[in-house]
Amino acid sequence: MRPFELTLADAAAAIRAKDLSPVELTDSVLARAEEVEGRLHAFVGVLAERARADAARAAQEIAAGRSRGPLHGIPMGLKDLVDVKGLPTTASSAVREGHVADADSTVATRLADAGAVLLGKTHTHEFAYGLTTPQSRNAWDTGRVAGGSSGGSAVAVAAGAATFALGTDTGGSIRVPASLNGVVGLKPTYGLIPRDGVTSLSWSLDHVGPLTRTARDADLVLAALTGRGAPYDSDGDLTGLRVGVPRTHYFDRVAPDVEAAVQEATERLRDLGAALVDVEIPLTRYIQAVQWGLMIPEATAYHERTLRTTPELYAPDVRALLEAGELVLAGDYLRAQRARTLMRRAWARMMEGVDVVAAPTVPLTAARVDQHSVQWADGSVESVSDSYVRLSSPANITGAPALTVPVGQDGAGLPIGMQLIGRPLEERTVLRVGRAYEETRTDAGRLAPDPR
Amino acid sequence: MRPFELTLADAAAAIRAKDLSPVELTDSVLARAEEVEGRLHAFVGVLAERARADAARAAQEIAAGRSRGPLHGIPMGLKDLVDVKGLPTTASSAVREGHVADADSTVATRLADAGAVLLGKTHTHEFAYGLTTPQSRNAWDTGRVAGGSSGGSAVAVAAGAATFALGTDTGGSIRVPASLNGVVGLKPTYGLIPRDGVTSLSWSLDHVGPLTRTARDADLVLAALTGRGAPYDSDGDLTGLRVGVPRTHYFDRVAPDVEAAVQEATERLRDLGAALVDVEIPLTRYIQAVQWGLMIPEATAYHERTLRTTPELYAPDVRALLEAGELVLAGDYLRAQRARTLMRRAWARMMEGVDVVAAPTVPLTAARVDQHSVQWADGSVESVSDSYVRLSSPANITGAPALTVPVGQDGAGLPIGMQLIGRPLEERTVLRVGRAYEETRTDAGRLAPDPR
Repeated sequence: MRPFELTLADAAAAIRAKDLSPVELTDSVLARAEEVEGRLHAFVGVLAERARADAARAAQEIAAGRSRGPLHGIPMGLKDLVDVKGLPTTASSAVREGHVADADSTVATRLADAGAVLLGKTHTHEFAYGLTTPQSRNAWDTGRVAGGSSGGSAVAVAAGAATFALGTDTGGSIRVPASLNGVVGLKPTYGLIPRDGVTSLSWSLDHVGPLTRTARDADLVLAALTGRGAPYDSDGDLTGLRVGVPRTHYFDRVAPDVEAAVQEATERLRDLGAALVDVEIPLTRYIQAVQWGLMIPEATAYHERTLRTTPELYAPDVRALLEAGELVLAGDYLRAQRARTLMRRAWARMMEGVDVVAAPTVPLTAARVDQHSVQWADGSVESVSDSYVRLSSPANITGAPALTVPVGQDGAGLPIGMQLIGRPLEERTVLRVGRAYEETRTDAGRLAPDPR
Repeated sequence: MRPFELTLADAAAAIRAKDLSPVELTDSVLARAEEVEGRLHAFVGVLAERARADAARAAQEIAAGRSRGPLHGIPMGLKDLVDVKGLPTTASSAVREGHVADADSTVATRLADAGAVLLGKTHTHEFAYGLTTPQSRNAWDTGRVAGGSSGGSAVAVAAGAATFALGTDTGGSIRVPASLNGVVGLKPTYGLIPRDGVTSLSWSLDHVGPLTRTARDADLVLAALTGRGAPYDSDGDLTGLRVGVPRTHYFDRVAPDVEAAVQEATERLRDLGAALVDVEIPLTRYIQAVQWGLMIPEATAYHERTLRTTPELYAPDVRALLEAGELVLAGDYLRAQRARTLMRRAWARMMEGVDVVAAPTVPLTAARVDQHSVQWADGSVESVSDSYVRLSSPANITGAPALTVPVGQDGAGLPIGMQLIGRPLEERTVLRVGRAYEETRTDAGRLAPDPR
């Protein structure tokens, strides 16, 4: 196995065992990035020289016996909303032309302190305001969308162009591209990871989190991001755990292959000792209105000044959404906040009966780049973006932790993700379930096949 | 001294010593209420029979050795926004015609558990949406306003028609009437006292708290409201304490008598050992815009349905404010929330240098009932309501605890209040300073002179 193919945990073990140096690993990942980047376009820019210097320093520290832990010497990508001192944070937007961050974000500081090696910033939908990443292509099929808005991060991790990456998730922007590219994505509990120095989309819904090849790797990155340090234990046995199987919402208008793969994965959880419990997802009629009712005015408020001074620098789709936000009434925003409170309480009551909910992450696999809508078996037509956000946004609204893990492929060979949603601050439980599941799969942590 | 003249602490001591029974105390307070109510109009209604029954039960429990603590058998008024099971919560509004609360508010439960005797509900500005209480008159001069919106509670306590009372405070509605009627009012830290079962005005600014004759009494009521039980210790020595004296905002456009009384009181704090430290109040230009920018749309959101179905049932001033709230844009509300965040941070930085800020509670004493504006020495004219809220609202915006204590009278013999603002959750400190100050006064806890 070439170094770029290693999971974070395996690479860290090899470094610890002196079978691999951070320099070899970084060189291998940089070479891989160079190989695939022309087709995938994951990065805003690859900082090869900086990465090699960081890797060399990590190697020296490790050789001197000063290990910083499992992320030491591991190459990563950061979604280009995350400030790193001295680098531009482009947010993939012309509005940020000439911008240079004057300080590290807290997450960049924590990852640097953990010894991670920055390869470069990854592409996002402009200011993360969308569920695609137009610049990037799916790691499994370059005729398909990467998903977004953390598309660059997902593609880089799936292709071996980064061992892990950070994304942000406001309505599903970590989990959607992770699912579409066959990698793991974790949206932690709202507020768990500090967001200062990370460009906002909608501050009451925004989360920062890791994209990795395995749930085990997500656990390692989360430990560094929270400052907790040590990862959680996990033994693969789910006896006593109650897995909620949604009877509403999460299997409505879902592609048959996706439904089948998630059901099969849920049955594997039962084989591991979990009890499957039917749950009824509450207040589903509020989801879309609350997500948009919060996001649209909050996003506009963030962009208030530049929207007035340089509206022409935004992409037309983002500008239209931002300008729409200027028309929202306070009463509508407050109605969304109140409905969110009701949803949060109703979810808390539902989650008294189960430890996690297992559901599809997105109702369909990666769309073709020229596909804008999807027709469902019931005859209804939905935009691809609306369908992508529909199953992920409840965890943004409620703030609950949600992990997506790959659970197979559809008939076209495209990856399918299963979402595990837990109680607030119970990252441990969703990671425990995700790890137990992935240990049953022989293909866990494997890269995307070379892109077509 | 007749029982209705006793402070809560003195009444509790007399009950504990078997020198006074809850029945005698309640009868005395009820008689006093009957005597003054025709002039003062503090109560929506006095529940004499219920109060006597509660007092008799308290007396029996105490005689049986089952004391519930210092509030046991003490007669109180509750602002008529506070739900008590089986009683109407009128909010002094025709909109609530026919309403009966189907459960106790948490604060009503806690006070009942502490053995307090409910005398009746007290008047408020309709739905607390104003800084007067049109039904009530000032306890010191019936030609003067009671202040509001917890005017009934303040007047009842000042006149001896209740030994203590609860109010609510969204922009100053506990502290303003307390100050104008020469009693003590405490707005605790935002979120410290549960508000469920208390009618909202503006949920991000609303607080419930006590009105009492002394800071010592406020401490006793707070202990019951928080469920903490025991009051704080206090020894009257302020050595080592740093008192912030505002160089900005709090002494701008303040009546000379008010300024002089607060300065003299501040000097007494220095005599007790405190160090006086000049402070600059930050971001004062935001105060009014943030207070109104939050309150107007939140209030309208709460009244959304009845405003649509029965707008004619609201008083014209309240209806106008509620209808204005329908026009507020989400962007304006969010701008107010963001400015509040900046204010909260700036106040936290300022409060690193001092333990409390000492300032006037309101810039002028009780206005005549027919007076609508005030002309200041600088020539500017301000509405009485705007002037009443100007010095109290910062603590609503920041959520900091704020206590008002009487510090003397103006040339017309009307009471003046000093506000002590502390760090969030440091009620102990503001109460310590308030108690130390009042121990220097021979008139502490004394009732208003009989109303003219």
